[in-house]
Amino acid sequence: MSYTYETDGAAIYAQSFAMIRAEADLARFAPEEEPIAVRMVHASGMVGLEQHVRMSPDFATAARAALIAGAPILCDARMVSEGVTRTRLPADNQVICTLHDASVPDRAKAMSNTRSAAALELWRPHLGGALVAIGNAPTALFHLLNMLEDPDCPRPAAIIGCPVGFVGARESKDALWADQPVPCCIVQGRLGGSAITVAAINAIASRAE
Amino acid sequence: MSYTYETDGAAIYAQSFAMIRAEADLARFAPEEEPIAVRMVHASGMVGLEQHVRMSPDFATAARAALIAGAPILCDARMVSEGVTRTRLPADNQVICTLHDASVPDRAKAMSNTRSAAALELWRPHLGGALVAIGNAPTALFHLLNMLEDPDCPRPAAIIGCPVGFVGARESKDALWADQPVPCCIVQGRLGGSAITVAAINAIASRAE
Repeated sequence: MSYTYETDGAAIYAQSFAMIRAEADLARFAPEEEPIAVRMVHASGMVGLEQHVRMSPDFATAARAALIAGAPILCDARMVSEGVTRTRLPADNQVICTLHDASVPDRAKAMSNTRSAAALELWRPHLGGALVAIGNAPTALFHLLNMLEDPDCPRPAAIIGCPVGFVGARESKDALWADQPVPCCIVQGRLGGSAITVAAINAIASRAE
Repeated sequence: MSYTYETDGAAIYAQSFAMIRAEADLARFAPEEEPIAVRMVHASGMVGLEQHVRMSPDFATAARAALIAGAPILCDARMVSEGVTRTRLPADNQVICTLHDASVPDRAKAMSNTRSAAALELWRPHLGGALVAIGNAPTALFHLLNMLEDPDCPRPAAIIGCPVGFVGARESKDALWADQPVPCCIVQGRLGGSAITVAAINAIASRAE
């Protein structure tokens, strides 16, 4: 076999994180935020992503406390829910994605909205105290903000709002950052996505690197 | 509800792809390659990604022919296999990820390699004529190249090699591009990942935008 390469997963992580800490500008992050930013850069493969990461001052603490207390993680896409490393979760937390529930296509039609947005209506019984992770659909993040305008809607503990793309991604994240209905983390602009969102969850879930 | 936004999924796609075609430099792609590059840029949220995309001249044609002929899609991670839009597949193709097979942890120990690499040993019965999609682990791509050095190892029809990251990603993709054991598509350098890989699959699977 011609190719020799690093085959030790732990060594690959350690080398990767060391490269990120040498190359990225992480000085503005608090100690509890820095490992989250490092993993987000890791997932993106792009030093410089950290410049677009914004976290409310109480985001890292609130999100971690929620997971330790057993809160579920509510995800807008299966690529997010499938990426969460179950063995890192501190309380065997539920990881919920309602996008493929059988009722969603009809709900979407009735709401004149996307399936991603309609699926959030099924979050209501789980939403109080949850960690929300939106890594795909701007329409889901916009719909969540509209849901939270109702004072009777349960409040999540924290929101990771990192939808990606060209239509609505920047706008929905700017809206979340302006509203801050609960502590939140965003990637400003077009960048984001399921891998970056999963990385934030995995960093919050455990301090192990 | 305060926020109004585009809620029509088809309109969001159309606007997004129009923005990408206005902003990105796609001139060097052949007609059958261009929609693949557009979707990869879309998934990344980053105009400029297209500069790092490389496709063998026969990649788009070979990969599409394989799917039309009913080939399975072999994925290195659940975030890849979960992202494939099943309704776009031309032959109800199988989408296979062997990473969580119960035998993989022991195989990885015996091979002194990562679980991602060890999982590829379970691909062998499916590998002949398949579309391979590696969107996460450089070790998986390196191990595939080593497997293919054995002339008795079945040949896939095409390889999407887009692992992401800081250790081995660039090197494994450079190795694939240098070897070209079969037609392939890579994102050179550190960038890549499951979303970009899924985007390439979804573009190959159907010409619908």
